[in-house]
Amino acid sequence: MNQTTNPTSITADPALPVIRIEREFDAPVHNLFRAHTEADLVKQWLGPRRLRMTIDRFDAVTGGGYRYAHHDENGTYSFYGSFHEVRPDERIVQTFTWEGMPDGVCLETLTFEDLGDGRTRLVGTSTFESVDARDGAMASGMEVGINEGYEQLDELMGRL
Amino acid sequence: MNQTTNPTSITADPALPVIRIEREFDAPVHNLFRAHTEADLVKQWLGPRRLRMTIDRFDAVTGGGYRYAHHDENGTYSFYGSFHEVRPDERIVQTFTWEGMPDGVCLETLTFEDLGDGRTRLVGTSTFESVDARDGAMASGMEVGINEGYEQLDELMGRL
Repeated sequence: MNQTTNPTSITADPALPVIRIEREFDAPVHNLFRAHTEADLVKQWLGPRRLRMTIDRFDAVTGGGYRYAHHDENGTYSFYGSFHEVRPDERIVQTFTWEGMPDGVCLETLTFEDLGDGRTRLVGTSTFESVDARDGAMASGMEVGINEGYEQLDELMGRL
Repeated sequence: MNQTTNPTSITADPALPVIRIEREFDAPVHNLFRAHTEADLVKQWLGPRRLRMTIDRFDAVTGGGYRYAHHDENGTYSFYGSFHEVRPDERIVQTFTWEGMPDGVCLETLTFEDLGDGRTRLVGTSTFESVDARDGAMASGMEVGINEGYEQLDELMGRL
């Protein structure tokens, strides 16, 4: 487990409705891939610390789908999507919708880059349907969930 | 069946990596929805006339997936994706990849708008990962497949 936390870069493309998220992990590719595709591992790290996660379905294979929820004292926030492609230890392409905005949808691509010495770079891109939708997501406080989630992912890597 | 063919509008968004396709059909919403979700109907119309279509999987439900191929005398062109959402008679959101370009992916949204009198407007948007990828698709001759496919869909509507 890290003593210091690796920084997370979250950037908005100036011309496209895209958010790019980049983060290095002191953990091997295969363990990070497992943490993104095995439901019992996913629910140990995804999202902000204060939310409890439950998973209805997590079929992380090409042509599969998922649905999960985060819970706090105020209610439940549900999300669902489909897995376009799950390429082991390399790449995951999936869709993403928050059920509170059922006509909104993102296309998300995550790549796993082996840096050697048991280290890995994750690069995620989220493509929205419009620049307004992307800017709304950027303004929603998403970075809290991403940063805390990735800190919890560091902790999970220390346990695998 | 139509005596005259309804026009298809295919436009590229000037600012976003999006293609928008709009077409009216002299057929009711539910029949058009069936033609997009039932494999034995899909293969009667999708794509250019000269290609034969085979379907490996077509599980048109939210969180399902598909894979199909078009064949001609020169070879086979395979495509796959996942169904993010299938909302009966209203909306289909899916991903799309041509296996010849395995790292390319589109997010496609299709809406079914009831115009009354047994007529329907289909509006499709395809969002690409970059404007270059979108422009490449526009330059590929895709309009032949779309126009001939929609003519075959008119013909199928006449048989339902």
